[in-house]
Amino acid sequence: MIKTIEYVNGVVRMIDQTRLPTEKVFVDCKTIEEVGEAIKTMVIRGAPAIGVAAAMGVSLGADTIAASNFDAFFKRMEQQCDLLGKSRPTAVNLSWAINRMKQVARDAKNLSIPELKARLKEEALTIRTEDISINQSMGKHGQTLVKDGNVILTHCNAGALATAGFGTALGVVRASVNAGKNIRVLANETRPFLQGARLTAWELKEDNIPVKLITDSMCGFFMKKGEVDLIVVGADRIAGNGDVANKIGTYMVAVLAKENNIPFYVAAPVSTLDLSLCSGDKIPIEERTAEEVVNINSKRIAPEGIEVAHPAFDITPNNLVTAIITEKGIARAPFTESLKAIVNKK
Amino acid sequence: MIKTIEYVNGVVRMIDQTRLPTEKVFVDCKTIEEVGEAIKTMVIRGAPAIGVAAAMGVSLGADTIAASNFDAFFKRMEQQCDLLGKSRPTAVNLSWAINRMKQVARDAKNLSIPELKARLKEEALTIRTEDISINQSMGKHGQTLVKDGNVILTHCNAGALATAGFGTALGVVRASVNAGKNIRVLANETRPFLQGARLTAWELKEDNIPVKLITDSMCGFFMKKGEVDLIVVGADRIAGNGDVANKIGTYMVAVLAKENNIPFYVAAPVSTLDLSLCSGDKIPIEERTAEEVVNINSKRIAPEGIEVAHPAFDITPNNLVTAIITEKGIARAPFTESLKAIVNKK
Repeated sequence: MIKTIEYVNGVVRMIDQTRLPTEKVFVDCKTIEEVGEAIKTMVIRGAPAIGVAAAMGVSLGADTIAASNFDAFFKRMEQQCDLLGKSRPTAVNLSWAINRMKQVARDAKNLSIPELKARLKEEALTIRTEDISINQSMGKHGQTLVKDGNVILTHCNAGALATAGFGTALGVVRASVNAGKNIRVLANETRPFLQGARLTAWELKEDNIPVKLITDSMCGFFMKKGEVDLIVVGADRIAGNGDVANKIGTYMVAVLAKENNIPFYVAAPVSTLDLSLCSGDKIPIEERTAEEVVNINSKRIAPEGIEVAHPAFDITPNNLVTAIITEKGIARAPFTESLKAIVNKK
Repeated sequence: MIKTIEYVNGVVRMIDQTRLPTEKVFVDCKTIEEVGEAIKTMVIRGAPAIGVAAAMGVSLGADTIAASNFDAFFKRMEQQCDLLGKSRPTAVNLSWAINRMKQVARDAKNLSIPELKARLKEEALTIRTEDISINQSMGKHGQTLVKDGNVILTHCNAGALATAGFGTALGVVRASVNAGKNIRVLANETRPFLQGARLTAWELKEDNIPVKLITDSMCGFFMKKGEVDLIVVGADRIAGNGDVANKIGTYMVAVLAKENNIPFYVAAPVSTLDLSLCSGDKIPIEERTAEEVVNINSKRIAPEGIEVAHPAFDITPNNLVTAIITEKGIARAPFTESLKAIVNKK
């Protein structure tokens, strides 16, 4: 089992995803600021993993607050949370986790400060454990869409490394394998950060699940050849109408899937739904540094002095999405209704 | 003016396109075998440039033939040509140039062997000069499709470096600029070989034409945002029905263009048309080594021991092609008729 993130003895330990697959090293965060930095620099990435890290970060931050009453404690906690919330803009799981931790604090306002801190730590650990079981439930639902012998194309890494474990899109793959289905994965390398080449290929190989690596520009070629049966990707935020923010290039995959009549599925926990937004147009798209595009393996691939763009996410409109797989079931169009029903379920 | 390829004093000198833009070095080929190797290893690439290099290579080879009569000379020349013809499979310009050189030899069979060799050298130089003026004519036609202020998206490098000079797709860009139009180029980096990042960005910057570099996965994002007015790409081979073989990822660009109602143009000389093939299905697609995908800047980007695919080209079906720009005019659907008319023109 790949240990993406753990919280032991006041330290948040993460596998450094900027250095995989060539080096397997861990980063220890001892403060909320270090957790924020790890999120910003993509030591940890993937919407659910960011949520788990944020919750643990909030707990680390809370531990440092010297306050004698709840109001003073909570005021400082909110300041810390505001800062952490700015580390990355697109994945809603960051603010989801922070809001959940704040609510836990509010609900426990009558506890002593040390008890309150313990309660927050407990909640962060719960979010981690829950995330794994949520992914397993998502996999259970998702694998019903997968047939024996299927080739699943995925973009970016929505795997164990993007979550506390098991994965969202790759959770569907793992659940299919666990159900005895013979599955192969076609992995887009996912420029510029190469999450597909570095992370998806690595974690599937660790689990002995057959994976073939391609450049992003090749996925249409294989779809047209009839070598892709379905597509499963993760999500960073899903608007109320089913528009999906996910890693840059996801829109490209979805358009190619439509052209080739291949089902396009999104696997994401309910915590990734942002029903407060009526459409994907409202989702903020992070613009990251040009350096991540023009430098690969510490060497430049382009001339100096040219303009470079680096939107890190794109929006796939709901009409390109066949279904959204969550831990509470599978939502289909019209999403405005089906997503609301999913959220209110149980 | 960028000197892609020259033929002086029995030496074919090429700018080494595997080392641009960080190093500007030249490779001197003194034999037909060295030219074949330069084509195979992509020191020189781009369909028209490959054609020019092949013609010069044939001349270098002919110079070494010790034969006292035409039949012996031509037999040896054909052997050399067969070998050279195998250096890369997809671009038809390679066999087009070789066939033209063979025809020149046949037509000059009554000359003395030294005169014949001089005739072949002359023809190789003519092919180079012709290529530049063909590209200028193509640009003249193509620029009528471009409006002042337009943003042109291109994939791979169909520029001066892919030809003897001026370029095909980038020839349309240059002709538009020369016609006084304010043009900006959005360049796909074009994994795995990064011709867009390394070559297109470099040569446009050399000519002070504004260029913005993006990863291939970003082009759909910018099309959907309304920031692309038209697409112009080159071609490695065009079948009789207008199906276009070009750099892997071209099909992806064309499908995204259709989804976003953006015109998709192909700029290619008549020598790239292969009317002997009724459809793109018949065009051989080169499979190159996995090493070119998993190694960037001499370092691995993926774990060892996984499967990797590397189709170097794809086929864009004619229904996605708005028009084909040639030196003899612009062909539109139905291409089976319009391409035939173009070939027979004048």
